[in-house]
Amino acid sequence: MTPFDSEGGIFMGSRRDPAGCRVGLFGVPYDGTTSFRPGTRFGPAAIREVSQGLETYCPQLDLDLEDLAYADLGAVDIPFGAPEPVVNAVQQATTAVLDLGLKPLMLGGEHSISSGAVAAVANQHPDLVLVQLDAHADLREEWLGTRHSHACAMRRCLEVLPSGDLLQLAIRSGTRSEFHELHSSGRRMDDVQALRDAMAPWTGRPIYLTVDLDWFDPAVLPGTGTPEPGGFLWGDFAAVVDVLSGHRLVAGDVVELAPQLDSSGVSSVLAAKVTRSLILLLGADQ
Amino acid sequence: MTPFDSEGGIFMGSRRDPAGCRVGLFGVPYDGTTSFRPGTRFGPAAIREVSQGLETYCPQLDLDLEDLAYADLGAVDIPFGAPEPVVNAVQQATTAVLDLGLKPLMLGGEHSISSGAVAAVANQHPDLVLVQLDAHADLREEWLGTRHSHACAMRRCLEVLPSGDLLQLAIRSGTRSEFHELHSSGRRMDDVQALRDAMAPWTGRPIYLTVDLDWFDPAVLPGTGTPEPGGFLWGDFAAVVDVLSGHRLVAGDVVELAPQLDSSGVSSVLAAKVTRSLILLLGADQ
Amino acid sequence: MTPFDSEGGIFMGSRRDPAGCRVGLFGVPYDGTTSFRPGTRFGPAAIREVSQGLETYCPQLDLDLEDLAYADLGAVDIPFGAPEPVVNAVQQATTAVLDLGLKPLMLGGEHSISSGAVAAVANQHPDLVLVQLDAHADLREEWLGTRHSHACAMRRCLEVLPSGDLLQLAIRSGTRSEFHELHSSGRRMDDVQALRDAMAPWTGRPIYLTVDLDWFDPAVLPGTGTPEPGGFLWGDFAAVVDVLSGHRLVAGDVVELAPQLDSSGVSSVLAAKVTRSLILLLGADQ
Amino acid sequence: MTPFDSEGGIFMGSRRDPAGCRVGLFGVPYDGTTSFRPGTRFGPAAIREVSQGLETYCPQLDLDLEDLAYADLGAVDIPFGAPEPVVNAVQQATTAVLDLGLKPLMLGGEHSISSGAVAAVANQHPDLVLVQLDAHADLREEWLGTRHSHACAMRRCLEVLPSGDLLQLAIRSGTRSEFHELHSSGRRMDDVQALRDAMAPWTGRPIYLTVDLDWFDPAVLPGTGTPEPGGFLWGDFAAVVDVLSGHRLVAGDVVELAPQLDSSGVSSVLAAKVTRSLILLLGADQ
Amino acid sequence: MTPFDSEGGIFMGSRRDPAGCRVGLFGVPYDGTTSFRPGTRFGPAAIREVSQGLETYCPQLDLDLEDLAYADLGAVDIPFGAPEPVVNAVQQATTAVLDLGLKPLMLGGEHSISSGAVAAVANQHPDLVLVQLDAHADLREEWLGTRHSHACAMRRCLEVLPSGDLLQLAIRSGTRSEFHELHSSGRRMDDVQALRDAMAPWTGRPIYLTVDLDWFDPAVLPGTGTPEPGGFLWGDFAAVVDVLSGHRLVAGDVVELAPQLDSSGVSSVLAAKVTRSLILLLGADQ
Amino acid sequence: MTPFDSEGGIFMGSRRDPAGCRVGLFGVPYDGTTSFRPGTRFGPAAIREVSQGLETYCPQLDLDLEDLAYADLGAVDIPFGAPEPVVNAVQQATTAVLDLGLKPLMLGGEHSISSGAVAAVANQHPDLVLVQLDAHADLREEWLGTRHSHACAMRRCLEVLPSGDLLQLAIRSGTRSEFHELHSSGRRMDDVQALRDAMAPWTGRPIYLTVDLDWFDPAVLPGTGTPEPGGFLWGDFAAVVDVLSGHRLVAGDVVELAPQLDSSGVSSVLAAKVTRSLILLLGADQ
Repeated sequence: MTPFDSEGGIFMGSRRDPAGCRVGLFGVPYDGTTSFRPGTRFGPAAIREVSQGLETYCPQLDLDLEDLAYADLGAVDIPFGAPEPVVNAVQQATTAVLDLGLKPLMLGGEHSISSGAVAAVANQHPDLVLVQLDAHADLREEWLGTRHSHACAMRRCLEVLPSGDLLQLAIRSGTRSEFHELHSSGRRMDDVQALRDAMAPWTGRPIYLTVDLDWFDPAVLPGTGTPEPGGFLWGDFAAVVDVLSGHRLVAGDVVELAPQLDSSGVSSVLAAKVTRSLILLLGADQ
Repeated sequence: MTPFDSEGGIFMGSRRDPAGCRVGLFGVPYDGTTSFRPGTRFGPAAIREVSQGLETYCPQLDLDLEDLAYADLGAVDIPFGAPEPVVNAVQQATTAVLDLGLKPLMLGGEHSISSGAVAAVANQHPDLVLVQLDAHADLREEWLGTRHSHACAMRRCLEVLPSGDLLQLAIRSGTRSEFHELHSSGRRMDDVQALRDAMAPWTGRPIYLTVDLDWFDPAVLPGTGTPEPGGFLWGDFAAVVDVLSGHRLVAGDVVELAPQLDSSGVSSVLAAKVTRSLILLLGADQ
Repeated sequence: MTPFDSEGGIFMGSRRDPAGCRVGLFGVPYDGTTSFRPGTRFGPAAIREVSQGLETYCPQLDLDLEDLAYADLGAVDIPFGAPEPVVNAVQQATTAVLDLGLKPLMLGGEHSISSGAVAAVANQHPDLVLVQLDAHADLREEWLGTRHSHACAMRRCLEVLPSGDLLQLAIRSGTRSEFHELHSSGRRMDDVQALRDAMAPWTGRPIYLTVDLDWFDPAVLPGTGTPEPGGFLWGDFAAVVDVLSGHRLVAGDVVELAPQLDSSGVSSVLAAKVTRSLILLLGADQ
Repeated sequence: MTPFDSEGGIFMGSRRDPAGCRVGLFGVPYDGTTSFRPGTRFGPAAIREVSQGLETYCPQLDLDLEDLAYADLGAVDIPFGAPEPVVNAVQQATTAVLDLGLKPLMLGGEHSISSGAVAAVANQHPDLVLVQLDAHADLREEWLGTRHSHACAMRRCLEVLPSGDLLQLAIRSGTRSEFHELHSSGRRMDDVQALRDAMAPWTGRPIYLTVDLDWFDPAVLPGTGTPEPGGFLWGDFAAVVDVLSGHRLVAGDVVELAPQLDSSGVSSVLAAKVTRSLILLLGADQ
Repeated sequence: MTPFDSEGGIFMGSRRDPAGCRVGLFGVPYDGTTSFRPGTRFGPAAIREVSQGLETYCPQLDLDLEDLAYADLGAVDIPFGAPEPVVNAVQQATTAVLDLGLKPLMLGGEHSISSGAVAAVANQHPDLVLVQLDAHADLREEWLGTRHSHACAMRRCLEVLPSGDLLQLAIRSGTRSEFHELHSSGRRMDDVQALRDAMAPWTGRPIYLTVDLDWFDPAVLPGTGTPEPGGFLWGDFAAVVDVLSGHRLVAGDVVELAPQLDSSGVSSVLAAKVTRSLILLLGADQ
Repeated sequence: MTPFDSEGGIFMGSRRDPAGCRVGLFGVPYDGTTSFRPGTRFGPAAIREVSQGLETYCPQLDLDLEDLAYADLGAVDIPFGAPEPVVNAVQQATTAVLDLGLKPLMLGGEHSISSGAVAAVANQHPDLVLVQLDAHADLREEWLGTRHSHACAMRRCLEVLPSGDLLQLAIRSGTRSEFHELHSSGRRMDDVQALRDAMAPWTGRPIYLTVDLDWFDPAVLPGTGTPEPGGFLWGDFAAVVDVLSGHRLVAGDVVELAPQLDSSGVSSVLAAKVTRSLILLLGADQ
């Protein structure tokens, strides 16, 4: 008995059966703490649907999904209502994926779910490094009455990250207090080159990459709940992939896609292509 | 200090100051338990916005909003997360409206909020009768892990309704068990004439009308989370208004508008016209 | 030199050259006085575009467009800005159509344009009867600073209608004062049968039919600027066509389609089918 | 080896494995001959997706999907390009469903696919009666260069229907020649009562019901390629279900849903509820 | 008595009462001369609505709205119809804002309204410099029959700008004649560095910034009536803000948002963030 | 008798009559092989419609459409069904345009139509060079059962291009095998400078430019069937125009616009501006 519900679509080329696979995708259709515009619950389904229109081959990495065994395990069966039980369910599901010998790749859903997955991965990899792509600092202690709001996602992750090694790439929105912390802590990387430099000494350490899709500019990804002008384009993400290809990625997530806000569907296509890159990075890593 | 937040729009012709008014509108932008398609949180704002395009005069009732003093008090300041505290906040807000000497008219938001308002009104009017327009029975004891799901709305209302006098007009969707209860209890009215007959002996008793907008056919109101084919048209609602005009309406609510699901905006216009009818009925009642 | 601009689409099966035709369509892409939601300027183009998907044969009338010669003259070249010059341009264009020996059929645009066309037709037919399908009375003397607002459309038409014989079918929205006038004047027809009865003595008199598409229920025509719940379905329009088929229709208009408000396109399809009926009625009349 | 591709969604409560089932659903995502607005290829996926929001219980029939075993076999693996091979693939797939001992229920896709399914069913049931719900006659011999256009659907069905017993319910659009045939053949049923009367002598004969969803009024189903004003509401369909519940339904199809044309999603919900009715009718039949 | 109508939404963190404030926002919901795609009338409301989702802190300027007192005065009460009276009303409203001791910040509406505001500000600051961000030159003498079309916006502004010092940043669309004037006059700045250089000698002079949002690339701001490919991204606007932070901004406007053309809402979010920058620049200036 | 159907819209400033013109536009509303999201059949109409909002003057080229005679010949009358006959019809239509002494500019429709036009142009210009802007390699031998899929567009073009001189600009999606061919053949140009260098020796040779609009980034052109993140902005296209302005462009096409996928309309505006550039390049060339 697994904590997953296998109905619904499947990511292009995935297997249902995890046996023999190296990577395990799963979705968390949760948007319970979203204060502005809900809908990230539809993110995993949208990524799976449009993935069918992608090529399996990635020219940047010169890798092909067809050469890799990976499973799409379906949706985590989440309890309804408050966020804490959801985070706990995510932690259990991620642990189950790790126990199957797979590298976890979680599709959100809102960002609050990341701390559950990070906790599970950090249990297995105590020296885990967390890399965050995001428009927002997400360092609030509490927001609108809950400590598990998506606006608190990184604050919660820091609590379950033994190493405390969090790198936040080019955060562009937050409170004055959050920006003070970003700068004083040295966690804010100004650009991809700074990220590359900061990670250079960490070859071989396990990396968890959390991709809040609102890191991208609203021009390329309008389908997200709190779009923030001034973001990044695909080429910037490709540069991050290039950095990571020299490191040891052990887990990741792709969150905050709200597909119904972008009737053109290009936000979902971008999210699916990000997912393809992460599957290949996770699968290529020894 | 009131439990309302007065920012945002205002219903056509309303005052902000409740002094001297007979009816008090307020919104509850909550959709936390919605399992299928969220967005009723945007309902109150949409009703207010499109209300500006309506006439103040209602030919059916031959009454004009311009002859009536009514206030739009704004949004209830709801806690974030689980539904119980929201229902409690709604009850307190409704009590505050009653204490101001106003008849409450609540704009949702999802249907789970109704039990808070019904509880407050039943405290003042112990012989309160509850009339429900709805596509769904909403009689589940629990749904997806919470007793305060919108699928449980009427079950919770029954618990706070001393008289137990609930009339459910032409419910067309539910479980086999719910339909068994609908029929065995005698609460399901097959049509408006049946409602008229059932209410005939109750002249003078206080009435609370809860309008789950999915009672209407999806043709006239596509903007709702769980549309159910086979519903009612405006003429049917006008017949209900005609029935109620001979009774003593003391409170009401208009819930489950999800305006972003209907890009034409006609769902919001219908909801605003329903609201106009209820303001006039509440204001006309002695 | 004609007052028309022939670029853009064309109604299904129409000719460009009016020679030998019996009916002359033209568009007036004007929405300058629209106070709520603009966009009727796009109405004529949308009607033309979707007309290509209709059959030419009408089972109700057992008439086929293929058996009739009719022209689509294009758009009236309207001056930009205030409404008076537009109304004057419409009058001149309608007169030009009449001078070509064609029966005019105007596609709007907002309702304020109708008085220009009615004036031209009444010059040729002093005993003209005006039949209005509309949700709104449109009898304001002035609205938002102009006497030519679409909310004043029928007030202006009455001024250029020598007979004063206006029949307003089942108007369902207006001010208290407008409804007082509707009832005291005897101009409001409660239903199609009342229209039939009222017109019975008028066999042979020239009829102008103005169809404000918001007469239809928003369920079947959401694409209009001021939708009003409680309207009519296609079968009701077919009944009006049946009444008119026993009379002498000499001109007509189809106004207030705002196609961009209905992304499904069914509003435009309905308007095109209404237009087909009117072409056939105009063409069949001797 | 089956002709189906089982990736993608699944209809609410269906099994993947046909063993022990009485009804077999399958989808045909084909819209190759659509001349006006394509997109019915997305119909089966949309019906499956929104089916999850329906109740399993049908109050009209007092039957519950939970009491029935039925399978969703997935999509027919159709060749790309011209329509003939698609129709052939549909016939083979339908035969495969019949060979499994299941009653076939096909989700389209455009109407041209029906002749493949009818051919397969008529092979097993030579006295098959075909009942058509549709806005259009679909009796053209050829359309836009192919004999397998959706505008020729019924012409092709007649060729593979040994009994020739086709009943066409209240067709409202077609050419003059098609209407001549409809009336002279006696195949056009003017209303549901006429259908009931015509079928009365046929108790026990096998029935195939083809539901072109544009039979419904565009108000309740705007999401179809060639919407035709003047159609039917849910209550009318319920009346047809009532007629059929006294007969022996052996197969059916639900075609011409173009979900992307209706951003509110209510067209898909209606189609899913139609599908629920048909599953229950097929499953109830001995 | 003020010329403003205070109903409707409010910009994040604004006060209604101007007492003690340094900046005064107001909206002008006017799109009367728009020839192509109307809808900028909805701009002010959309900016106010989405502003609620922004942070108050601006990392670029290291300034926080919470440290500043500013008022949102509501909508200018504009006459309906021709543009001249609207421009006059805007001039009076802007003068009223200045008389209250506030720096005016106007939200459009179409660009034709700017000359009214510029006239009022230039009355107080005769050496006013006007800086224009725009895709279009807007230098036509007349357009479609009116001298106050939005295509004439800068021509009209030049007439009320005593200094004649207008800088037009990287205009990319216009007639051959407009481009000739842009180049011969030296008013077209090729890029932000050129703007910086041109303004260097003008420290201390009062600046009015008019932001026609179509200056941005349609990728980041699709919601405008006449989108022009080849525009600017957020980083370019940030560079302009950097230039202005060394100057004395005394007034500004943000015009030509047509929110209904961008269903994702990101255009409105961008416009709200531009507005936040301008409030902070206006408030910071001594 | 021409192979064109002249009903429908017309590109800004075009003539209907080809006499005396230098450039001949025509549309091919075909999307029959589109496997993912159809709708490019609506491309030509959308380009024509929004072209009316563009200026005639191009600042980059300092050329004005008003100084040039060019015709919009309408739509190619294409047979319905399989792609081969469509490609043949395109070849005949292109030959007809060449025989009229016009330079052909084709508006798609899907990319599979290009080989028909290239074949016709190569018949007249045997040393024709083909330049491809595209996200995808389109070098498949066959796709989903047809050799004329849009995924095979360039493979088919190569078969009718005697010189074999194809340059593929910065292709970013394909199979491993396609990328192997791209690199081994030397046909993939990494950037515009590489294109400029490769073309430098070819002054005076006839050039055909095929613009698959998905070459652009989905940010600036979301309205296409298979959007691929990581594409180009307007400035990149302007650089290509600059390269081509030094060469001899003899024909071109603009394909794969699916306007209904981008409700903001900016994709169509971009496509129309691309078309304007190509008309000017074709008209300027001797």
